[in-house]
Amino acid sequence: MNFEETIKEIYNKIKDIEDNGHSATYIPQLANVSSENFGVYITTTDELGFGLGNCNERFSIQSIAKVLSLCLAYRIVGEKIWDRLGVEPSGSAFNSLVQLETDNGIPRNPFINAGAIVISDILISNLDNPKEDFLAFVRSVSNNTDLNYSSKVADSEKEVGFRNVALCNFIKSFGNIHNDPSDVLDFYFELCSLEMSCKELSEVFLFLANKGRKPIDNTEILTKSQSKRVNALMQTCGFYDESGDFAFKVGLPGKSGVGGGIIAIHPNQYSIAVWSPKLNKKGNSFKGMKFLEEFTTKSELSIF
Amino acid sequence: MNFEETIKEIYNKIKDIEDNGHSATYIPQLANVSSENFGVYITTTDELGFGLGNCNERFSIQSIAKVLSLCLAYRIVGEKIWDRLGVEPSGSAFNSLVQLETDNGIPRNPFINAGAIVISDILISNLDNPKEDFLAFVRSVSNNTDLNYSSKVADSEKEVGFRNVALCNFIKSFGNIHNDPSDVLDFYFELCSLEMSCKELSEVFLFLANKGRKPIDNTEILTKSQSKRVNALMQTCGFYDESGDFAFKVGLPGKSGVGGGIIAIHPNQYSIAVWSPKLNKKGNSFKGMKFLEEFTTKSELSIF
Amino acid sequence: MNFEETIKEIYNKIKDIEDNGHSATYIPQLANVSSENFGVYITTTDELGFGLGNCNERFSIQSIAKVLSLCLAYRIVGEKIWDRLGVEPSGSAFNSLVQLETDNGIPRNPFINAGAIVISDILISNLDNPKEDFLAFVRSVSNNTDLNYSSKVADSEKEVGFRNVALCNFIKSFGNIHNDPSDVLDFYFELCSLEMSCKELSEVFLFLANKGRKPIDNTEILTKSQSKRVNALMQTCGFYDESGDFAFKVGLPGKSGVGGGIIAIHPNQYSIAVWSPKLNKKGNSFKGMKFLEEFTTKSELSIF
Amino acid sequence: MNFEETIKEIYNKIKDIEDNGHSATYIPQLANVSSENFGVYITTTDELGFGLGNCNERFSIQSIAKVLSLCLAYRIVGEKIWDRLGVEPSGSAFNSLVQLETDNGIPRNPFINAGAIVISDILISNLDNPKEDFLAFVRSVSNNTDLNYSSKVADSEKEVGFRNVALCNFIKSFGNIHNDPSDVLDFYFELCSLEMSCKELSEVFLFLANKGRKPIDNTEILTKSQSKRVNALMQTCGFYDESGDFAFKVGLPGKSGVGGGIIAIHPNQYSIAVWSPKLNKKGNSFKGMKFLEEFTTKSELSIF
Repeated sequence: MNFEETIKEIYNKIKDIEDNGHSATYIPQLANVSSENFGVYITTTDELGFGLGNCNERFSIQSIAKVLSLCLAYRIVGEKIWDRLGVEPSGSAFNSLVQLETDNGIPRNPFINAGAIVISDILISNLDNPKEDFLAFVRSVSNNTDLNYSSKVADSEKEVGFRNVALCNFIKSFGNIHNDPSDVLDFYFELCSLEMSCKELSEVFLFLANKGRKPIDNTEILTKSQSKRVNALMQTCGFYDESGDFAFKVGLPGKSGVGGGIIAIHPNQYSIAVWSPKLNKKGNSFKGMKFLEEFTTKSELSIF
Repeated sequence: MNFEETIKEIYNKIKDIEDNGHSATYIPQLANVSSENFGVYITTTDELGFGLGNCNERFSIQSIAKVLSLCLAYRIVGEKIWDRLGVEPSGSAFNSLVQLETDNGIPRNPFINAGAIVISDILISNLDNPKEDFLAFVRSVSNNTDLNYSSKVADSEKEVGFRNVALCNFIKSFGNIHNDPSDVLDFYFELCSLEMSCKELSEVFLFLANKGRKPIDNTEILTKSQSKRVNALMQTCGFYDESGDFAFKVGLPGKSGVGGGIIAIHPNQYSIAVWSPKLNKKGNSFKGMKFLEEFTTKSELSIF
Repeated sequence: MNFEETIKEIYNKIKDIEDNGHSATYIPQLANVSSENFGVYITTTDELGFGLGNCNERFSIQSIAKVLSLCLAYRIVGEKIWDRLGVEPSGSAFNSLVQLETDNGIPRNPFINAGAIVISDILISNLDNPKEDFLAFVRSVSNNTDLNYSSKVADSEKEVGFRNVALCNFIKSFGNIHNDPSDVLDFYFELCSLEMSCKELSEVFLFLANKGRKPIDNTEILTKSQSKRVNALMQTCGFYDESGDFAFKVGLPGKSGVGGGIIAIHPNQYSIAVWSPKLNKKGNSFKGMKFLEEFTTKSELSIF
Repeated sequence: MNFEETIKEIYNKIKDIEDNGHSATYIPQLANVSSENFGVYITTTDELGFGLGNCNERFSIQSIAKVLSLCLAYRIVGEKIWDRLGVEPSGSAFNSLVQLETDNGIPRNPFINAGAIVISDILISNLDNPKEDFLAFVRSVSNNTDLNYSSKVADSEKEVGFRNVALCNFIKSFGNIHNDPSDVLDFYFELCSLEMSCKELSEVFLFLANKGRKPIDNTEILTKSQSKRVNALMQTCGFYDESGDFAFKVGLPGKSGVGGGIIAIHPNQYSIAVWSPKLNKKGNSFKGMKFLEEFTTKSELSIF
């Protein structure tokens, strides 16, 4: 693969820079992860893979799971899903309640917490066994039956998740949650506790670089149009109020998680995952952002 | 050119749909333009062009000029320009003062009015004869010495532009306007009065589909990195609070104007301009948005 | 009592005006009350009383209870109570979450829902049996051992109180709720379900017209200074975003409830209660507001 | 007068406390006033007066003039004035543009800058020679032909008043300014430059403690009802976002100015003016607030 040299060079450079970020500590279980971890893994649409560092160690993918839950809900419900939430960047912090008040309980997009909670509600209404069925979906997308939730992390998040409880009940007060808020939150916290390594993450997301189909057997996960739209959403809304900056500096659709993971997609070419737990002020992995910025600059590959 | 058939087909289809939009009337001079106009023009990076309808009639490009003023300022000042404004979508109406208050007078991005006013201020500080020099820049980019401002439109806008006067003075109160507000506004209203046809518009913007260089003689207007970044900004911020929807449905970087024009860029392939004066609720051309949505769907060309 | 004629005259006039208000329906149990009820009762500091209409029929005092819970908490905690909440009018709807976000979980005043929830939390931390002890306090203030909660109303409110659940958890996320949110809310909904007639209401609140002491036996409920301050708070914050209008038109400290009750205090003179279930757009009793406006105009008694 | 001893005692105590405030410096001309000044003057409705310290030295009354301009406009236009602005506390900083956006250009009350600018616009529409006529009104209210504007202060404020220019043009964009914004602002800045001593200030405002009539000759300045309503407005809105705190601690209607002056009214009893240039964080005179708090506590006179 012709990316190997570029990745090695940038990995080694970024590995040693001073990391001004701070690991997320609000979820006690996340605070226990060594902040020294740094891994990267790329998988191309012709199914070649290459990784470095802690690329095989699993971490909590957190908000990155919001893309997967969106994909499953989108697959089931189709375009009607957008009656319940929007596709616009939020322009403010990821857990803001302000816009919900203005927008009468319709979250701006599926990647802010409010939107992901509505997606969880939609899945509960449409799945027989939400937790099991969602996990089965994720496993099938990647042909990896070993993927799983971390109940420790989910429990840890439940203990301190007052703001998400507030969000869910606030949306319920507008009528945009159809199930019991505690069931919705229980499922939501479970989703966010999914654990993967960089390698697994880049493999799970490869279908979004391949027009919605799994390269290995050409199974359609999303239609071509849906896949394009999920990528567009990641481009405009994937990094909270740093989404513009990510588009500006990296130029790829992507999604970050508070566990320090980032997935980025180059349509028709590859999916790449990076992981480093220390976060910048906007809540995105400090080294991860730096790595991807340098990678698209050096490789001269961006969608723009 | 292989786009011809697709464009013809979609043009004829969209031409006859019911147009639920309304022409902008707040600028008296714009209200005089026939709302029946509908034109489209595409120019490819190998300099082939094709157009239909009112593609050679000039109209007021309005906010589309904000991309050109950004390009000139970016070319002169470089990355330091981002000390004065951001690169994030605003998440609210195009003329909102709320975010400016929260953000201490730093506009969210160069395409909301506040940001374009700061860009005007930067140009005034850096140009000897701002109006003449900017016009010369636009003419040189397109090798079209015939382009010009419409003083009627500029005057018309000045008469009713109280909210822009408010914006400019508000930013000045935070210290982020360095020149006299009335000079800045005079220049700003002039910029917005630039007139072009769809053909001219697609030709002027072609360098952004060509890594920052004019295809005709390979002159560098912006560096490769700057060109990529301007495209990223158009993708995330080009359509006010419909930016997410445009990325979602069209999947190309672009910019709209209240005169009913839209420019969209497919990096490495083409620039396409559409014009139809009636605007949807978000202030973007109703038919223009529909046309581009169908065009990228049909042609299966989008960056995602 | 020299108010009798004035009250009769105004009561009869207001009784027959067209009532443009609407009864609160969001709490199912409240929607069952006949909207034709209209009562008024005045008690002077020399303990004379006079009433008309449905002045002896009990109704749900709802938010009026927030004054009583504040008084008990203020009595127990003293001025330190203001570390946990403010004394400023909120300037926006009574259940807004926006300001809480700006103010880091410190509610603007004790009479918006957020503030009353914090007061409930303070009482839970300071009382052995919160529900019983608070009820005992209210009974002792009025020498009326017959007063009670309505568990039907409390249960009814719990079923639909998602926004209050949101508020409480949101404040908890800032650390300004010390107990379990569900315990706090359980107590809060119970408080709001207190039932009194106009006569009982005016008698319970008489101590605030009497420098903090019960006229009957001179028992101190609040110090003179505390009593003055509670009155000031009712003046500036007692009617949600109609507080200014109430001061403007009525000119007395007061508090309204969504059940259609209003209590108003003329320091050193009287306390007056009105009840009529239909509410104006701001959520205050339509006829109650009209009655009090005419009463202070006619009697030429206002504090201003 | 029985207030003399109380005033002396408190004046001497407050005089020597550490003043944690800071003089307003945004208006260059105000920054030149010695921050050591401290004066107080009381005038009772039976026209007795008493003062201490720098009570005869003139200072810029600034926002206190907003009460006088409201009174003149209210006198001319009557209750129709409230079609153009509200009577509710604003709940946020004195120059916020946020609420104007939500409220479509209707300022919350006449004492925030936006409201006072609308009042200025109303006066311009109703007076032949606005500056001269307003000054004549103020002089006639106090029988003091010596009162005047300070053109130095007005000019100084104009030079830096970008935010007020923004406010005025913003309101104009909603159609709630009928005259040319620069004329309105010219008049507004002139009003704010009125200069008075504490003695003069307390004498000018005495009619508001006397049911709207000048005690000296019983001339009606405002009707009884209007006078009551202006007092109510001062109570709920007179101190920006410290209005609740002033009601809470002082318990009198009043108005402060950024020059360090405060006027307070005890209906039917007295008007009292204090002046000390250093301001607390909310923009109100540090020593002035302390003095009035102690004065109403010690004298046990408050309206609550």
